[in-house]
Amino acid sequence: MAELTNIRSPRVKAARRLTKRAFRDRDKAFLAEGPQAVREALTIDGVTVELFATADAESRHPDIIGAAAATGVPVHRASGEVMADLTQTITPQGILAVCRFVHVPLGQAVPAGARLVALLAHVRDPGNAGTVLRTADAAGADAVVFTDASVDPYNGKCVRASAGSLFHLPVATGAPVEEAVRQAKEAGLRVLAADGAGTTTLDEVDLSRPTAWLFGNEAWGLPPELLALADEVVRVPIYGRAESLNLATAAAVCLYSSARVQRQTLHSVEDPTTSPR
Amino acid sequence: MAELTNIRSPRVKAARRLTKRAFRDRDKAFLAEGPQAVREALTIDGVTVELFATADAESRHPDIIGAAAATGVPVHRASGEVMADLTQTITPQGILAVCRFVHVPLGQAVPAGARLVALLAHVRDPGNAGTVLRTADAAGADAVVFTDASVDPYNGKCVRASAGSLFHLPVATGAPVEEAVRQAKEAGLRVLAADGAGTTTLDEVDLSRPTAWLFGNEAWGLPPELLALADEVVRVPIYGRAESLNLATAAAVCLYSSARVQRQTLHSVEDPTTSPR
Repeated sequence: MAELTNIRSPRVKAARRLTKRAFRDRDKAFLAEGPQAVREALTIDGVTVELFATADAESRHPDIIGAAAATGVPVHRASGEVMADLTQTITPQGILAVCRFVHVPLGQAVPAGARLVALLAHVRDPGNAGTVLRTADAAGADAVVFTDASVDPYNGKCVRASAGSLFHLPVATGAPVEEAVRQAKEAGLRVLAADGAGTTTLDEVDLSRPTAWLFGNEAWGLPPELLALADEVVRVPIYGRAESLNLATAAAVCLYSSARVQRQTLHSVEDPTTSPR
Repeated sequence: MAELTNIRSPRVKAARRLTKRAFRDRDKAFLAEGPQAVREALTIDGVTVELFATADAESRHPDIIGAAAATGVPVHRASGEVMADLTQTITPQGILAVCRFVHVPLGQAVPAGARLVALLAHVRDPGNAGTVLRTADAAGADAVVFTDASVDPYNGKCVRASAGSLFHLPVATGAPVEEAVRQAKEAGLRVLAADGAGTTTLDEVDLSRPTAWLFGNEAWGLPPELLALADEVVRVPIYGRAESLNLATAAAVCLYSSARVQRQTLHSVEDPTTSPR
């Protein structure tokens, strides 16, 4: 197999431009780096357009190369220099997929019957957004909505921080916050805004009902007009002397608290002899 | 006041060398950047050696300059170039303190009667370690122990991520993991290792007792010989399809779960008419 060694070759340039949002939006495609993300992408029909892999990565990940062959996804062998050019990371993992967009319309991400959803209102740091996506997946959330004021879910850092979760659960992107909140309410979800300004604490709020958590900006939280959209504003209690929690940490505590209470509630409804712990 | 404009001046060089661990250990001092950290440092007697501030930061933070004057801490006005040289951040906040070490001996950080402690076993990323410190503070933990295989708590990125919490609760550093675990057990704490390999989940384990959480490395968790030191190995349940949680997220879920259950337990003991929520 001929190795791509020239960072100016048309194939490499076409992939590299996907590191910029304008080109991602135009091509409706993005880059997913690393064996974990590539493996996940290959499990979904029609998502992976092509792979780039160094010779070393090919020999380290025969399962991925095999899965690509089985689904007819072309694998281009790339030099270390080309890979470094495409991945924008300090220590590239040697394998990268060009993927078609995976997001779904808002109504499909947040349908009637959803029980736990994360709405990102003004989350600007891609690492934070990806971490919240990963945590929402772990907590068994039904979907994550990136509203139009939040970072692009296909940003390379966000994809990396999501650790494959971008491919696991429905993600919607681009809707205004107001529309996302309206959709959540129409789907029967209670909208809880997570904000240090809340008068209700996480220990006090009823978490047994289907819930959409609204998370704001890393530095300044949620502005009053967005807090006003929520059914309730809830703060994570600070038991010590910290001024606040960081966004991804607060989201983890909120999403896991909901998951725990919802599971206890479901459990006690399904099996009345088992008391919730 | 004369402004420091030369990055080669002895005063600036003496401060800058504290960006390196070897010099921090020699001088028993470190740098705390930003108004929040500096404000916290000034609240503790004898911690702050001197401040560096740009003219702009001085006018923006008269409270800090006032507090320094009141406690006899010298303030050196620094040019933007000097500040950028000292802070190593892309957007320096214009104010920086040289502080004396604040850690305490292990036995003082984890005394008999402690109820919630975080032990960092092999946490290597300073941002993660600082975030766990901030979260432990928020969850009302009694102390955080940075063992000898973990990052230096005085690393600039760790201090920044801790958002002032380094000054809020007792921190111990440098003890081997084994010694930290032994101390926790002697202080009457149950040692729970947080690891995806755990057979007990966070929903099942008894969190009402005084607990020391042992957290491992970002990438590879806790090795068998450290898991064996714990009273129990506990995993955060994954309800969705994520492979795992990131370290700071998992720590947040564990520490907040402990805090919630301990508070409910205390509450129900103190007031038997109130049932735990």
